Amino acid sequence: MNDITAQILSRLTAVPDFLSGEALCRAFGITRSAVWKHICLLRSEGYQIDAVTGRGYRLSGLTGRPVEAEVHPFLTCRRFGRNILYHPLTTSTNIEAKALAAEGAPEGSVVAADCQSGGRGRMGRSWVSPPGVNLYFSLILRPAVPSVRVPQLTLLVAAAIHQALCRHSSDLVAMIKWPNDILADGKKLCGVLCEMQSEPDCTHFVVVGIGINVNQSEFPPDLQQSATSLFLESGQLFSRPELLASVLNHFEPLYDAWLLEDDLGFILPYLEEHALLQSKEVTIDQLKRSVRGTVRGISRFGELKLESAEGETILVSSGEAHLRSSIT
Amino acid sequence: MNDITAQILSRLTAVPDFLSGEALCRAFGITRSAVWKHICLLRSEGYQIDAVTGRGYRLSGLTGRPVEAEVHPFLTCRRFGRNILYHPLTTSTNIEAKALAAEGAPEGSVVAADCQSGGRGRMGRSWVSPPGVNLYFSLILRPAVPSVRVPQLTLLVAAAIHQALCRHSSDLVAMIKWPNDILADGKKLCGVLCEMQSEPDCTHFVVVGIGINVNQSEFPPDLQQSATSLFLESGQLFSRPELLASVLNHFEPLYDAWLLEDDLGFILPYLEEHALLQSKEVTIDQLKRSVRGTVRGISRFGELKLESAEGETILVSSGEAHLRSSIT
Repeated sequence: MNDITAQILSRLTAVPDFLSGEALCRAFGITRSAVWKHICLLRSEGYQIDAVTGRGYRLSGLTGRPVEAEVHPFLTCRRFGRNILYHPLTTSTNIEAKALAAEGAPEGSVVAADCQSGGRGRMGRSWVSPPGVNLYFSLILRPAVPSVRVPQLTLLVAAAIHQALCRHSSDLVAMIKWPNDILADGKKLCGVLCEMQSEPDCTHFVVVGIGINVNQSEFPPDLQQSATSLFLESGQLFSRPELLASVLNHFEPLYDAWLLEDDLGFILPYLEEHALLQSKEVTIDQLKRSVRGTVRGISRFGELKLESAEGETILVSSGEAHLRSSIT
Repeated sequence: MNDITAQILSRLTAVPDFLSGEALCRAFGITRSAVWKHICLLRSEGYQIDAVTGRGYRLSGLTGRPVEAEVHPFLTCRRFGRNILYHPLTTSTNIEAKALAAEGAPEGSVVAADCQSGGRGRMGRSWVSPPGVNLYFSLILRPAVPSVRVPQLTLLVAAAIHQALCRHSSDLVAMIKWPNDILADGKKLCGVLCEMQSEPDCTHFVVVGIGINVNQSEFPPDLQQSATSLFLESGQLFSRPELLASVLNHFEPLYDAWLLEDDLGFILPYLEEHALLQSKEVTIDQLKRSVRGTVRGISRFGELKLESAEGETILVSSGEAHLRSSIT
């Protein structure tokens, strides 16, 4: 979508009533036939636009894609999401966002896609990303913190997403699986992948990648036991632009608090209340070893607190958690 | 320098005696006049090459630049430095190396420059990088460790450089200033800037940037109190290619040991023996606060151990150290 088309869409979404063709001509310094071409372009992208002689144009149907014009009406936060770059298809929004961040894109910039051809989860695993149904987006952050603190962001984002999901679906019983997933009914609903570029003393940028299974109605056979969607859990369809905005609205104040507080202490009660692994026996697979124990909570630095069979407390800062006597 | 020119240079450096023009023709499938053109190119870059009818070509003088052909004869390590990309001038070898790493350059690849137009130290500060005298190079690593361990690499590299410098200049009294500088006579001789791209569980790549003031004979007035060079400290001139190779030769075994050991325990005695700050009263400036205390050592995770005025032990993982009652 070119710049003027996007701006015309923004104006149409901002006004519930008809907008005269003349007003659009004046606003962009273009002819009536040029306005008409932009309207046709928007219709070809799925927007329903009424055109009535003497009154002008009125938006009567959105596409439900996570584009700036459809997300902005729902944004209440101040900095995040003011600039959303949307792709119908991209390899991975994290790859795109890392490139933009390296070029200097400001904090709060978002890359969103309708579909990813190479969506990824942690450790290079793939994240299935079909078009038209789910949310795949990446948020660029520039926190002035040493690099060792950045892994805490994964849990903080998970808390914000959990808050947003529960707000929009009151029946949903979703749990946060340390450190980066949200599950419902034991199946994956959402994943977070934070990537950063840093030196020890300072963080150049962080890219927070978020995938949420929103309206997907079925999963391939090999994922049916391990993945679910908001639609499958609640029977409702959700507005993707509204949900994206809601995640940003919930995350921005948590992020600001975290920058001030220097750790996760302020959000620990929430994280522990909704922790899938709390009091469970788990195995944590790390790059070179596995650690076993019973989960006793989360430290203010985001580490999982395990109690070993010998009663010792172990702090685990990274790894893949598996419930014992389960394949999850 | 094009590929064949570089390969002819490699052959000439490998053989102390004359190499016949015919042998070079055969080796590269080129004509005698083509060989002659490559020889002229090498001479134009500063190489002294004797040409004697009936005997061939003999290298009688190197340029002393950190190019692959001049570094390789001194390399004894197995993986580091086998692939050196040399630039007469670049913005910053770290910027160049990060771009190469993002494209998949293998571990051990090195970017070296004769001169940097935008050389940087920690926290975005500039690193003065005049041509012809010093070493500026960046090494690409791909350690299979969680991102929280990467800051330890800075101290490990500092130890390797310290070993290399002391090996080549037995009179030099150099000290390691936690976490990333080497000083002689209280002035900066060398700096290390590690940058990484990572997710919490795994490190995609680390770029270790190293600047060593080697043969620089004078510094601008504003740096004379804070910077020095190997030449100024020892009165000797040093071969830059040999010194670069020596740093890699010392670092590779330390790095391999670190990957196995999982922490810096094995090198702590060395780090503490040569620690500038040991037993000193210091202030550590961090992004948001300052910490004061007396240095009691280094932890196996690379943190500085401070004893506060109240006798409490404080572990500091990042920041800029200043000796109290000093401006350093």
